Amino acid sequence: MYRYLDLIDSPAALRALPETALRDVANEVRECLVDTITKVGGHFGAGLGTVELTTALHYVYNTPHDKIVFDTGHQAYPHKILTGRRDQLPSIRQKNGLSGFLKITESDYDAFGAGHASTSISAALGMAAARDQLKENYKVVAVIGDGAMTGGLAYEAMNNCGVLKSDILVVLNDNNMSIAPNVWALSNYFSEIFASPTGRRLRESILGVTDKMDNLGDRIRGIAHRMESGVKAVITPGMMFEALGFRYFGPVNGHNINQLVKMLQGIREMKGPILLHTITQKGKGYGPAERDSQFLHAIGKVDKITGKSLSKPPAVAPPPTYQKVFGEAMVEICSTNKKVVGITAAMPDGTGLDILQKHFPDKVYDVGIAEGHGVTFAAGLATQGIVPVVAIYSSFLQRAYDHIVHDCAIQHLHVVFALDRSGLVGADGPTHHGVLDLGYLRTIQGMVVMAPKDEQELRDMLYTAVYSYTAGPIAIRYPRGNGVGVPMRPMQPVEIGKSETLRSGTDVAILAIGKMVSHAMKAAELLEAEGIKAEVINARFVKPLDTAMIDDVARRIGRIITVEDGQIEAGFGSAVAEHLAQGHDHACDLRIHGIPDVFVEHGTQEELHADLQLDAAGIAAVTKDFLSDSVMRHALR
Amino acid sequence: MYRYLDLIDSPAALRALPETALRDVANEVRECLVDTITKVGGHFGAGLGTVELTTALHYVYNTPHDKIVFDTGHQAYPHKILTGRRDQLPSIRQKNGLSGFLKITESDYDAFGAGHASTSISAALGMAAARDQLKENYKVVAVIGDGAMTGGLAYEAMNNCGVLKSDILVVLNDNNMSIAPNVWALSNYFSEIFASPTGRRLRESILGVTDKMDNLGDRIRGIAHRMESGVKAVITPGMMFEALGFRYFGPVNGHNINQLVKMLQGIREMKGPILLHTITQKGKGYGPAERDSQFLHAIGKVDKITGKSLSKPPAVAPPPTYQKVFGEAMVEICSTNKKVVGITAAMPDGTGLDILQKHFPDKVYDVGIAEGHGVTFAAGLATQGIVPVVAIYSSFLQRAYDHIVHDCAIQHLHVVFALDRSGLVGADGPTHHGVLDLGYLRTIQGMVVMAPKDEQELRDMLYTAVYSYTAGPIAIRYPRGNGVGVPMRPMQPVEIGKSETLRSGTDVAILAIGKMVSHAMKAAELLEAEGIKAEVINARFVKPLDTAMIDDVARRIGRIITVEDGQIEAGFGSAVAEHLAQGHDHACDLRIHGIPDVFVEHGTQEELHADLQLDAAGIAAVTKDFLSDSVMRHALR
Repeated sequence: MYRYLDLIDSPAALRALPETALRDVANEVRECLVDTITKVGGHFGAGLGTVELTTALHYVYNTPHDKIVFDTGHQAYPHKILTGRRDQLPSIRQKNGLSGFLKITESDYDAFGAGHASTSISAALGMAAARDQLKENYKVVAVIGDGAMTGGLAYEAMNNCGVLKSDILVVLNDNNMSIAPNVWALSNYFSEIFASPTGRRLRESILGVTDKMDNLGDRIRGIAHRMESGVKAVITPGMMFEALGFRYFGPVNGHNINQLVKMLQGIREMKGPILLHTITQKGKGYGPAERDSQFLHAIGKVDKITGKSLSKPPAVAPPPTYQKVFGEAMVEICSTNKKVVGITAAMPDGTGLDILQKHFPDKVYDVGIAEGHGVTFAAGLATQGIVPVVAIYSSFLQRAYDHIVHDCAIQHLHVVFALDRSGLVGADGPTHHGVLDLGYLRTIQGMVVMAPKDEQELRDMLYTAVYSYTAGPIAIRYPRGNGVGVPMRPMQPVEIGKSETLRSGTDVAILAIGKMVSHAMKAAELLEAEGIKAEVINARFVKPLDTAMIDDVARRIGRIITVEDGQIEAGFGSAVAEHLAQGHDHACDLRIHGIPDVFVEHGTQEELHADLQLDAAGIAAVTKDFLSDSVMRHALR
Repeated sequence: MYRYLDLIDSPAALRALPETALRDVANEVRECLVDTITKVGGHFGAGLGTVELTTALHYVYNTPHDKIVFDTGHQAYPHKILTGRRDQLPSIRQKNGLSGFLKITESDYDAFGAGHASTSISAALGMAAARDQLKENYKVVAVIGDGAMTGGLAYEAMNNCGVLKSDILVVLNDNNMSIAPNVWALSNYFSEIFASPTGRRLRESILGVTDKMDNLGDRIRGIAHRMESGVKAVITPGMMFEALGFRYFGPVNGHNINQLVKMLQGIREMKGPILLHTITQKGKGYGPAERDSQFLHAIGKVDKITGKSLSKPPAVAPPPTYQKVFGEAMVEICSTNKKVVGITAAMPDGTGLDILQKHFPDKVYDVGIAEGHGVTFAAGLATQGIVPVVAIYSSFLQRAYDHIVHDCAIQHLHVVFALDRSGLVGADGPTHHGVLDLGYLRTIQGMVVMAPKDEQELRDMLYTAVYSYTAGPIAIRYPRGNGVGVPMRPMQPVEIGKSETLRSGTDVAILAIGKMVSHAMKAAELLEAEGIKAEVINARFVKPLDTAMIDDVARRIGRIITVEDGQIEAGFGSAVAEHLAQGHDHACDLRIHGIPDVFVEHGTQEELHADLQLDAAGIAAVTKDFLSDSVMRHALR
C-alpha cells in the first residue's frame, strides 16, 4: 500500500534508498501516522512535527549502532514506524501493545526510555562517556523539544557537555509550543529576534560591518574573527548554547528533509558538543491538527478528514473528572480568598488549573516543565503569607522530592500539594503511574497526606488543606479521570487524621484509601452476597493515621485488610502495619493489599485494576482468601 | 573592641553610618569572622568572599522589610554578624548554637533557609510573586554563587523570572571556585574572555565599530542600537542571562564596597529581573585561606596567624573514615575493572572520590551541583555496559529521586548508589541529615538497599554492588566520619538479602542496620551486665529483607526491637513490621526504634545519638523498656 514504507522494515532499508526518495518516505510516514492515530488515538502533534527530522536522523546515522535518544517519547511515533514497528502501531498505548513512549525492552532502536521530560541530554552524554571509556566509536544524538528545555536537567546536562567536551549532537526541536505555550523565556527571545524584518536585516548589515573590518590590520583581524563568532551568537539564537560550550548550527527548517540530511551529514563528522536548532510545526501536514490546537497533544479516535471525534457520546453524562472538580473548586476558593494561588508545571489543561486560569489569569503560575522550581517557588510564596496550591502529577512530583523536604517541610511552610494522576494512570504506563507517593511522602517529617474517596471529598480536602491546617505542607493525592458521581454540596472541612466508617461489619474490616474506597464498597456488597459481613472504612489519611480507629477495629473485628492503589512497600498498609505490629492487641490479623514490587505496564485503568485484583471482584477475592487464611491462623493459635 | 561593629546591633544601625565608614565596617566584619572561625571552626572561604557584598546589601536594602535570600548558607556568616548574631557566632554549628546555615526560625533577617544549593532564585521569585499578589512593595534579592549556578533549579528559576518579568535582583557571586573548581562551563567561558588582553581590546574596538555605524542612516541606527546591546552581550558574560530575560550588570569587583553600594543604589530602583555579576575571591583577606585552597570550604580550629590546625593529634590514630575507605576501595576495583567509574556532584573531596581522581582522573565524573543529571548520566553510562558508582550524600540524593525511579529502576539499569552521610550527620543539621533514604528508596520497585555495619563491610557491599548484583539499581548507605576500626581484609561478596547474627541471645533480638549495629553490640553488653540476654543481628539489607531470619527470631525469641538512624515512618523497622504483621506467628512483639516524626537539629553525632537514645546506653534503655512492656503484654494475653 505504501511505495516505500512497505520496503522499510528497518532503518538499514531506509538508508539503502537514494536521497531523492526521502521526501516521499517522509510523506508516507506522515500518512501512516495520520491514518493510524485518527483510528486508535494517541499523542499526535509532536510526532507529526518530527517526521522529517526522524527520517533524516535514521538516514544519516547508523542506528542502532549510533544512538538516538528521544526526549519524552511523544515525539517518537515516526521513529517507531521506521524501526520495524509499523504493523504494531495500531496497538499503541493499549494493553500488551506498543508503549506510547520509548522503551529499551521494546526495540534495540529505543536507546533510552522516557516518559518524563528533559532526560535525553543527560542520558546521551552518559552514552558518549561510555563510548569514550570503552574506546568505541558510535555517534550519540539527543533530540529534545523546546518545552523540555525549560527543565533544569537539560541545562545541567548541557553544562556538563561543555565541561566534558564529548562528541555529542543535541537536536533542539523547537516548535515553541511544547505542552503549554510561552513557558520558555529563551523561546520568547528567539521569536522576538526572528519575528521582525529588523532581525533579518540585522544579520545582513552586521555581516557587512565585519567585512569592513578587514582593513584594521592583523591584530584587529584576530579580534574580528572572534567578534564574528560573537556577532553570530547575537544574531542567531545560539548565544546561550555557545556560552555553555556548544557549537551552534541553525536555525534550520525542520520540515525540509534534504536540507536536514545535508546538515546532519556535515555535523556527523564533527568533534565536540554540537547543537542543531530546528524549527518545526506541531501537527505539521495534518489540516485539523494545524488548525486546532486541541489536536496538538493527544487525541482520541477521530474522523480522518474532518478531525471530528468518533467517540460516541455516552447515553448518560459521566461524572466530572477529578481534574475539572479540582479546577472549579480552586475558582470557588480564589473567588473569596485573595491569598490562594495555583501552580502548574506546564500542565494547566491536564491538571484542571486552566479553569482557574480562565477566571483569574493572575492566580495561576505556569513555571514550565520545572517541578523542582515550582515547589521551591511555592515555598517562597508561602513565606509571605500566600497559600500556594501546587498541582503536579504524582509521578512528576518525584522530581521535586527534595524541594518538598528541604524547602517546605523543614521550614514548616504551608504549601498545598494536589497530586493529580495518583495510582495507576492507565495508557501512559510505568513512567506515569503515581504509585510511590504514599511511601515517599509519609516518611517526610510532619507531612500530612490524604486521599479522597470521591470528587466531593476532593473538594472538602482542598478546603481543609487551605483553611484547616496551616502548620506545614499538606498533600492530597487523587486519580486521573472521572469521579464517582456523587452529588456535590458546599465544601466543608475534614478533621485531620480522622477516618470515616462507611459500612459496618463483623467478619472483616476493609481499610481503603482514595479511589480504592468505592471499589471496596462494591467488594463488600459482593461479599455480603456470600454471607460475609465486611466493615468498610474510608481511611482518608495516610499520615497522620487514625490510630484510634485501627485500635478499635483490631479489638472489635480482629481482621483488617488494607487496600491501596500504590506500592505495598512503605505505603498505606505499611503505616497500618507499623501501628498494629507495635500495638497491644495481638489478636488482629492483617493483610496488606496493593501493588507488588514490580513496575506495572500500560493498559486501561480498569484492565490494570482487574489484573492486580484492585477492582471490586479482586478485592472481594483477596478478602475471602485472607479470611480463610486468617481462620486457619486463629485455629493454630 | 570594634569601632563600628560594637555599634551595629542590626542593619538599621549599619544604615545610619556614612558611606565613608563602610570600608572600615567591612574590615571589622572580616576580622571578626577570622577571629571567630579560626577559634571554633566552620565554613570559612565563602563567607570571607562575601563580606563587602553582604555589607553593601544591608546598607542599600531595607532589611528585613526587603528580603535577601542567600543561596546555601555557607556564605552567610557576615550576614549573621551584621544582623545581631555576632555574640552568638562562637556557638555556630554547635548544639543549641547558631545554625551553620540560614534559618527562618533563627532570625527575621533569614528570609529563607538553605543547606542545599541553587534554591535562592526560586524562593526569591516566590517572594516577589507574593509581594505582587498582595500589592506590597518590598524588594527581593537572591545571592547565588557560581557553583550553585550549575544546578538546574537556578536555571529553571531564571527562566521563570524572564517569563514573569517580576522585579527581582539576582546577585551572582562568582569566585569560579564553588566547592570544586571547573564544573561550570559558563564560568570557563567567562574566564577565557577576561583572561586575555584581547578580551579588553575587543570591547574597545567593538565600541569603535558601532560608532562608525552612525552614518548608515536612521534605519540602520535603530539596528545599531539593537546591535549595541547585542554587542554588549557578546563582550560581557551576560549573554545567557540576557537571553533568559534579565538585564545584566557587571562584572564588578565584589570587594570594592563603595562601587557595590553605588551600583546597588541604582539597581534598587529598577524594574524587572536584573542580574548583577560580582567577581569575588574565596578566602579574601585572610592570608592562609588565600594561599591554601584547603581553607576554602570549611575548617577546624586553627592558629589565626599561621593557619595551622590546633586540633591535637589523637594519641591513637582513629579508624579511617568511611569516605577514605570508599575512595580506596574504588581505586582497588578500578585497577582491575575498566568498566567501573565514579560520579560525584561537586563533592570529590567530601565523598572520597578525590582519591580515585588522583589515581585515575578519567574514571571520575564531576557533574557539578547537579544530582539529577548525575544520576541520569549514570543511567546512560549503564545502558552501554559501564558500571557507574554514584557517590552522593543521602540528603542531596533526594534531588535525584525521580532520576533513580524513572531513569534507572524502571529500565532495570545496573547503577550503584553510594549514599554518603546517611543518618545523622552532626553539625550541618536538619538540611543535611540523611534520615529519609531507607523509606524513599525501599518503596522503589526492585531496588536493593543495604547498609554496612563497619568500614570493611562497606568494602564488601561495594564489591557486591559492582559484581554480584546486576539486575538493577543497588544502594549502599553509610555514615559520615570514622569507621569502627575493624581490621581490613580483601573484599568479598555479601549474599543479597541475607543478614548476619553477631551475638546470640534468648530474651530479645536487636535487629540493627548500618551504623546502629556497633551501638547495638555495645548495648547488648550493657544489657548482659543486667542479666538480659540480647541477640544482635546485623540486618545488612533493608530490601530485600531477610524474612527467613525474622521468622526464625520471631518464633525463637518472640521479641524484636529494630534500630535505625533514620525516620521511623516507612523505614527499616517499618519493613520488618510489614512482614511481621502479615506473618503467621503472632506471638512476636515488636518495637521500632529510630527517629520520631520531627526534624533533628544540629549538634555532634554523639550528642544527637544520645538525645535520641540511639547510642549504646539509649538502645539498652529502650530495650529494657520494651521488655517490661512486652512482659506486661504477654501477661495480658
